[in-house]
Amino acid sequence: MCGVLTDALSTVLREPVQLTVAGRTDAGVHATGQVAHADLPASLDTAWLVRRLARLLPPDVRVRTVTAVPDAFDARFSALRRHYRYRVATAPSGAEPLRARDTLSWPFPVDVEAMNAASVRLLGEHDFAAFCKRREGATTVRELQRLVWSVDDAAVVTAEVSADAFCHSMVRSLVGALLDVGRARRTVDWPASLLSRGERASEVPVAPAHGLALVGVDYPSDEELEARAAVTRNVRTTAT
Amino acid sequence: MCGVLTDALSTVLREPVQLTVAGRTDAGVHATGQVAHADLPASLDTAWLVRRLARLLPPDVRVRTVTAVPDAFDARFSALRRHYRYRVATAPSGAEPLRARDTLSWPFPVDVEAMNAASVRLLGEHDFAAFCKRREGATTVRELQRLVWSVDDAAVVTAEVSADAFCHSMVRSLVGALLDVGRARRTVDWPASLLSRGERASEVPVAPAHGLALVGVDYPSDEELEARAAVTRNVRTTAT
Repeated sequence: MCGVLTDALSTVLREPVQLTVAGRTDAGVHATGQVAHADLPASLDTAWLVRRLARLLPPDVRVRTVTAVPDAFDARFSALRRHYRYRVATAPSGAEPLRARDTLSWPFPVDVEAMNAASVRLLGEHDFAAFCKRREGATTVRELQRLVWSVDDAAVVTAEVSADAFCHSMVRSLVGALLDVGRARRTVDWPASLLSRGERASEVPVAPAHGLALVGVDYPSDEELEARAAVTRNVRTTAT
Repeated sequence: MCGVLTDALSTVLREPVQLTVAGRTDAGVHATGQVAHADLPASLDTAWLVRRLARLLPPDVRVRTVTAVPDAFDARFSALRRHYRYRVATAPSGAEPLRARDTLSWPFPVDVEAMNAASVRLLGEHDFAAFCKRREGATTVRELQRLVWSVDDAAVVTAEVSADAFCHSMVRSLVGALLDVGRARRTVDWPASLLSRGERASEVPVAPAHGLALVGVDYPSDEELEARAAVTRNVRTTAT
């Protein structure tokens, strides 16, 4: 997505554009609520840019809106929290054709109550190393703020997952572990028991990428952004 | 869909199966609520059949449920009414990638109120020949029971269209005409004025197939089916 969008922006503006995205997504993971920033000429007509990009970009990448933001805004570092969603079709007939692209077919009955009970035990700030693909220099301590499962009339089970940030493959590993709880292959206590592990737990299955989507990113208000930038500037000034 | 499903059923049952569907759909039109009937052995485990078909069918054809019905049931001729839905993405950025498969990208502002005003004038029993591809021996007199447009937060405009039955390309022609009203290329009275035409109106654009889906089919209750079949039998007896 990032490369395609960078190319399109550079084409429109006739100069190289540097793009910063809020959340990188693995191959196959969708993003319906991605946010990115770039430095563009202040005179640019943003409505015009949206229409131009709609014609230039492939149909599977869309830019919904372009908005001017304070200088202090950084799509990645200003983000307060990321929201993901994972969809699992549990009906015996599998995923609906029109939603098969972003829904895992897992045609087994699952105990959503047990999955929610196991999810609650994971909330809060923990070392999620058991659920992360280790990356050199990256912390695995994260604050899991929300992890809730619901089921609709068509037996599609959906997880809503929010955290300040996620380590690599964390949502897919949490989903894989919780689906094992849902099928009664593991106890309700099992996922949380892995939090003490301190390293990748190989017995945690990683759910397939295509059921996952980044659906939103939260940012502070413009005023808070400016205030925070001012604080950072002060610290820097003091530190000099 | 029909051919693929007939083949899968014949494979499972090891004998040729004849399938009757409620509503035929043109190439590219989706069906999320299609209904079909076939004569199968009464001893068949329907839950088992759903699971078998889930493995045999391609991912874009799913059988949600299999239910035993009275002998009098006919997927096509017992149907009281068909429900279609047409989705149009009017945002400047076009259709969302995950819904582009069943949503027309039509990145222009439309006047939904005008489209609804024009739609109301089409309700009731009329000769819809202006909106039909003529087919030898097929009537173009239909009862349009519902035609309502709504718009969601993401500027997706959706038509819900119900009738006892539809002639060939009728929904797509109605949508094409009403989108022209929405863009103020035509007046609110124009679509209904074509009802007196009595033949295909070449100035009516036919909206692309992929925005359209058959979403449901209504049937009488089992008791009413039996009663109606009894009436038919009586008539036949009398007539002999």
